[in-house]
Amino acid sequence: MAAERLVVIGGDAAGMSAASQARRLKGPDALEIVAFERGHFTSYSACGIPYWVGGDVEEREDLIARTPEEHRERDIDLRMRTEVTELDVAGQRVRALDRESGKTYWTGFDKLVIATGARPVRPALPGMDAAGVHGVQTLDDGQALLDSLDALRSGEGPRRAVVVGAGYIGVEMAEAMLKRGFEVTVLNRGEQPMATLDPDMGRLVHEALDGLGITTVNGAAVTKILTGRDGRVTEVVTEAGTYPADVVVLGIGVEPETALAREAGLPVGPHGGLLTDLAMRVVGHDNIWAGGDCVEVLDLVAGRTRHIALGTHANKHGQVIGSNIGGGYGTFPGVVGTAVSKVCDLEIARTGLREKDARAVGLRYVTATIESTQRAGYYPGAKPMTVKMIAELRTGRLLGVQIVGREGSAKRVDVAAVALTAGMTVEQMTALDLGYAPPFSPVWDPVLVAARKTVAAVRGAGN
Amino acid sequence: MAAERLVVIGGDAAGMSAASQARRLKGPDALEIVAFERGHFTSYSACGIPYWVGGDVEEREDLIARTPEEHRERDIDLRMRTEVTELDVAGQRVRALDRESGKTYWTGFDKLVIATGARPVRPALPGMDAAGVHGVQTLDDGQALLDSLDALRSGEGPRRAVVVGAGYIGVEMAEAMLKRGFEVTVLNRGEQPMATLDPDMGRLVHEALDGLGITTVNGAAVTKILTGRDGRVTEVVTEAGTYPADVVVLGIGVEPETALAREAGLPVGPHGGLLTDLAMRVVGHDNIWAGGDCVEVLDLVAGRTRHIALGTHANKHGQVIGSNIGGGYGTFPGVVGTAVSKVCDLEIARTGLREKDARAVGLRYVTATIESTQRAGYYPGAKPMTVKMIAELRTGRLLGVQIVGREGSAKRVDVAAVALTAGMTVEQMTALDLGYAPPFSPVWDPVLVAARKTVAAVRGAGN
Repeated sequence: MAAERLVVIGGDAAGMSAASQARRLKGPDALEIVAFERGHFTSYSACGIPYWVGGDVEEREDLIARTPEEHRERDIDLRMRTEVTELDVAGQRVRALDRESGKTYWTGFDKLVIATGARPVRPALPGMDAAGVHGVQTLDDGQALLDSLDALRSGEGPRRAVVVGAGYIGVEMAEAMLKRGFEVTVLNRGEQPMATLDPDMGRLVHEALDGLGITTVNGAAVTKILTGRDGRVTEVVTEAGTYPADVVVLGIGVEPETALAREAGLPVGPHGGLLTDLAMRVVGHDNIWAGGDCVEVLDLVAGRTRHIALGTHANKHGQVIGSNIGGGYGTFPGVVGTAVSKVCDLEIARTGLREKDARAVGLRYVTATIESTQRAGYYPGAKPMTVKMIAELRTGRLLGVQIVGREGSAKRVDVAAVALTAGMTVEQMTALDLGYAPPFSPVWDPVLVAARKTVAAVRGAGN
Repeated sequence: MAAERLVVIGGDAAGMSAASQARRLKGPDALEIVAFERGHFTSYSACGIPYWVGGDVEEREDLIARTPEEHRERDIDLRMRTEVTELDVAGQRVRALDRESGKTYWTGFDKLVIATGARPVRPALPGMDAAGVHGVQTLDDGQALLDSLDALRSGEGPRRAVVVGAGYIGVEMAEAMLKRGFEVTVLNRGEQPMATLDPDMGRLVHEALDGLGITTVNGAAVTKILTGRDGRVTEVVTEAGTYPADVVVLGIGVEPETALAREAGLPVGPHGGLLTDLAMRVVGHDNIWAGGDCVEVLDLVAGRTRHIALGTHANKHGQVIGSNIGGGYGTFPGVVGTAVSKVCDLEIARTGLREKDARAVGLRYVTATIESTQRAGYYPGAKPMTVKMIAELRTGRLLGVQIVGREGSAKRVDVAAVALTAGMTVEQMTALDLGYAPPFSPVWDPVLVAARKTVAAVRGAGN
């Protein structure tokens, strides 16, 4: 019997996890695996790029979980620098372009995994492609930025970095540039940094960034980037003013890379991501799976799909897809929207719905915000930790939690992530048996304190 | 209308939380509150004593959340150094002994809270009361130990501390004595230290203690303590050998202090703790509540009661009792048995059932143990973290988790605590949306890795 052929488009987390898991379950006699990657790297941690740029991680190779050679040793026919340019769903084949040779060819598949990832949002503004303007989406991007910084090092005068965008990548890159010795200005289009938090919590981040020596400018949508005679960036012009820059880092988010799939007629959702079922099969296509940054995921709290580009989801997707293709069974039920980040010793976390998310899906809610410390107040290193909690009116069901604090604060959000998954009420949460010892928590864990205050808010709100 | 009188026996966490919460809900015109405390302090953190002894916490007063004066300012008639020596349930009165004056008197109550705490287990062995042998249960104990250490400081020669007991208090006191500059030996009666973990995880703690320069001797049940001519401890004799000691710290656990209640005919459980209903009323007595270290709590996983002396439970009990007495509503549904601790940078955590607990209640189970790191492997400070997970055979329901690792490991156990409370299966846990960023976790959180391996164990075990 001829082996079935699995084709994988995209060689990062979702695609190669799927390939590896399928290979674990089915040997090369039963399943041929061909994987296409248009870049230079496979299976790397894009989330680690800010720490490599900042110098916490020394080598680019540290971010690579598995090299092309390692994949090939496991009987995966991995074709690097090869881009899939066309997908013929009915004909069960893809057309690939070998970027080295310029040649194209068709490859048939029995089963297909689409893991094309996301692409950075780059507004078409004047100067966006100037020298010294860098995205940080891929390892190639990171290398280009580091090369640019090395070139600057020989220059004179103050070194000024402008980071465009104040989300996770923006604030993480602000830390990285600070560590590289730059004066750092973060340009934020919105009302407060960290738009994944409510503005009241974003304000706390803003204040903490000030304290770290990072200037954040709100309402600063970029309109153009100015360059000098050498073609290199000199200033960033925004609606809020003009900011001198020796280097500009773009951290303005990503969108699903689904052009190929859309042209092939595959279904995409309101955020431009592919739509899948619980087994991660593309809706309406039994032999096509999709996962990672190119899909939309079900938000279990909001009851609708979202687009979240995050390595941990991509790995889970790959695992589920590979299991199903390999004859096993797995599902990805959805997300609750957990995210954690840090800027120096400031930690930021969120899960579930923000106030505006709740309103957008018709939920009425109450909120409560408390200040506590991550350790017992008397224990060395006790530092402030603010927790905001959102619960549904009447039922008291937990809807979301946001945390801003210092070392040891962010991962507390996992308690809320599990509670959201389990559909707990804030009243139930007040009884949770969370770990207590003075080096780890006050005798009332901050999450419990927040739950108690939210219970009072639910009761006080009546109907 | 004459005010009702609430009498509270015991002025630490449970008792004074109950009094404070009742006062918050009912003013002095509606509720008179009389509280008796036999010691010198109220509302203090006994869990903080090791850190005060070790020098991390400077002042004894740092451990006191609320002084007697502060309680009195809130219209609580707090009688310090006054011990309740008799409880007349039918007559609704208690007899108090003023330890200063030696006088006794009866006080009537409409409602009663018993919060008499726990007392250290002190085997009646020769030399147990020698100078230089110290418990660390109360602030008075801690002060006596510190005074003893100060006296030693003027002496000559090596300073050797022997800690009896290798549970939470034992290992925390081992750290404290290490910080005070002692050579530390921990004498452990059992097979491995930390008997609240399974022996395989206890062995990891043993190895880590070795690495920290703390000698642990297993199978070392103490038989007697020898003293010198000055009446001060010189050696500790055990079944495993004899150990020289300049100071001995007893960390051998506590048992519920319920003599008073038992003499009054109140019901106690198999562990000697008072039995209550979900509202924390003593079973069969509508006007008597009990909470804190003197009660047994329902273990939600095992389905039977346990005795756990832990400030976080005591505070919750007090809150529930005070709400119910004050005309509000609250319940304490039970515990899942979460505990966290640290010794220097070693962190230890557990929740749910150990293997032997599962066997004891008739559960059949599988286990899986994984090694990972608390941060992404490439991120600075990434250190080992071992997670053991126990799940029920067939159903795959989570039964317990144990963690031994370095900084940032212990509080991960809270994820399992919530999952246990929600009755999740390990398969459900594999899909949990836990916070991921390289400074906080590998892309697969160690808890998720453990869950995946446990899923495989459940499936592999068949029936």
